[in-house]
Amino acid sequence: MISFAYGLADPALFPRAELLAATAAVLKEDAAAALNYGPTYIGLREQVVRRLRSQGIEAEDENILVSYGSGQILALLPQVFVDPGDVVIIEGPSFMGAVRHFADSGARLVTVPTDADGMDVDALEQTLIDLRRQGVRPKFIYTIPTFHNPTGATMPLARRQKLVALGAEYGVVIVEDDAYGDLRFEGQPLPNLAMLDQEGWVIRISTFSKTLAPGVRMGWAYARPEITARLATFKTEGSSGPFLTRVIAQYCAEGRLEAHIQELIALYRHKRNVMLEAIGREFPAEVAPLRPEGGFFVWCKLPPGMRATELLPLAEAHGATFLSGTRCFANGQGDDAIRLAFSFLPAEQIEEGIARIGAAMRAI
Amino acid sequence: MISFAYGLADPALFPRAELLAATAAVLKEDAAAALNYGPTYIGLREQVVRRLRSQGIEAEDENILVSYGSGQILALLPQVFVDPGDVVIIEGPSFMGAVRHFADSGARLVTVPTDADGMDVDALEQTLIDLRRQGVRPKFIYTIPTFHNPTGATMPLARRQKLVALGAEYGVVIVEDDAYGDLRFEGQPLPNLAMLDQEGWVIRISTFSKTLAPGVRMGWAYARPEITARLATFKTEGSSGPFLTRVIAQYCAEGRLEAHIQELIALYRHKRNVMLEAIGREFPAEVAPLRPEGGFFVWCKLPPGMRATELLPLAEAHGATFLSGTRCFANGQGDDAIRLAFSFLPAEQIEEGIARIGAAMRAI
Repeated sequence: MISFAYGLADPALFPRAELLAATAAVLKEDAAAALNYGPTYIGLREQVVRRLRSQGIEAEDENILVSYGSGQILALLPQVFVDPGDVVIIEGPSFMGAVRHFADSGARLVTVPTDADGMDVDALEQTLIDLRRQGVRPKFIYTIPTFHNPTGATMPLARRQKLVALGAEYGVVIVEDDAYGDLRFEGQPLPNLAMLDQEGWVIRISTFSKTLAPGVRMGWAYARPEITARLATFKTEGSSGPFLTRVIAQYCAEGRLEAHIQELIALYRHKRNVMLEAIGREFPAEVAPLRPEGGFFVWCKLPPGMRATELLPLAEAHGATFLSGTRCFANGQGDDAIRLAFSFLPAEQIEEGIARIGAAMRAI
Repeated sequence: MISFAYGLADPALFPRAELLAATAAVLKEDAAAALNYGPTYIGLREQVVRRLRSQGIEAEDENILVSYGSGQILALLPQVFVDPGDVVIIEGPSFMGAVRHFADSGARLVTVPTDADGMDVDALEQTLIDLRRQGVRPKFIYTIPTFHNPTGATMPLARRQKLVALGAEYGVVIVEDDAYGDLRFEGQPLPNLAMLDQEGWVIRISTFSKTLAPGVRMGWAYARPEITARLATFKTEGSSGPFLTRVIAQYCAEGRLEAHIQELIALYRHKRNVMLEAIGREFPAEVAPLRPEGGFFVWCKLPPGMRATELLPLAEAHGATFLSGTRCFANGQGDDAIRLAFSFLPAEQIEEGIARIGAAMRAI
């Protein structure tokens, strides 16, 4: 079975030798601190701060909370912000790994539609107006503005500006999930929401999962200090590990992370191209893939009348699988689309898998 | 300043070369799984299971939850068991790093006294009787039966049996914190509470912090499957890291952990001896230290009339510090005792530090 279902990283570029060298350096030079009790290594926070500053964000150390993957921040958010019945605004479609945490906390999810330019901020404004009329102030808006999961869409500047302005106007926190932002294949970088935010309404969540390796489980949140302090209170196990945080800081130093990101971009750009070309060749012409400028995913609208949940068992019978669009909505939508991850598989398997799904589509 | 205040591990025996070799092996042989998304490495749970079975506990994989240090389990426990106002029974003195989590969750703490044999289980029984009369069923009993923190005391078999029987009789979970249990310097090993428990009332918490290194932040809970499943639900960041759990499993394999524990026992036994001899030499004869058979701490009752909180600034003026007994009680007691950690400092510094505290005692 060739699986496009999950956004796994490509093992071909795992920096094994560099991670080992970083581990050796930490154990040689800093073992007494790395292996005893202690806080998250300050040097890792400093590197995150430097990186944010190089992107134009006036970050300080107190703006950063290092966590066990960005997933931990996504799990802590509802603990900090949500009581049962509170409204959380999400995009449709969205990353259900995050949305599940919000739902588990008892949040009432309100879905705002997206298009090829990400969240429809006019629809968001109408939602905020409607909620205000009902006396409801949402606890936060969860958005993936850059290389969206699952659609791959990137929100243009004007929408970003309006989104940030709406957060300030309605007094609603905006959670910007920037897991994929470093992996831009083409086009000009856009300011992320945290850069546009003058009043501290944005919490930006990022991770080393896409740029280093998911298995190290290391991410971070950038937010105003009251928010990082509050998140830290709920991060009850305390330190993110004196050993692991030092190994990652050591790995990232001296420009290694930046150089590695350039290699990743070249690899993932190639695999996106292979997938889009295969889709053009193998899928019926009515299938409309979104062309992502970065990230891990291609989102395909299916031809009218074709249902993702109907296609899935047929595709699996042909030996390939994907994520049905229904798995990306909290409100039952999505049966007209599928998510294809090009991140994990080698190019030749991408071509073979797309051909198999194409055959399944033609068999319907 | 010579500090006996914290139970840090001795860096002299951090297994730096072995940890590096384990990292190299994982990155060479298993990088694709170690560095991508994935669960806690099953092999680490299997090693924990094997170790428990060698101790006579019929553990299965589903009895084990691997966590970011035992501290994470201690933080999750009240999330699973405690609503504000619920009663949690603790020992006096106890490990306040754990008790703080219980208090933060709104638990009403009821303290049962300890002596040189650990928790006074007759006093516990009376407490359970009194609470039952009030219609109160405590949520759990938190105990450190082996090489207690802070007293170093080890609970004899008869008390262990009675404690486990009381848990079953009153339907109360017993949380056995076994952080130090592997570090026995002398005397016969006693069955831990989990071994004596026939009905699944015991949750045993352990850690690699004292046997490998605190900085790797890795621990685990043993409990009946419903409890580990419930704890896992609250462990919202999910996996304890495919990379780190593999490195630790690799380190522990082939008897390395067991061999390392024997080295640690020899080192810490020596340092306990050095501390007890220095105390005999340097402290007033009325000071009564408890002789621990293992672990990290010596607990000293002060001479009548001498207060720990009064001694502390004077000792610090002499260039040495310790943990006042008041920092080990949730009910304001403890000003008649101090906790001295012998784990961290080299022998010569232990001697010098004890001499300084002795001088401060004589100056009162």
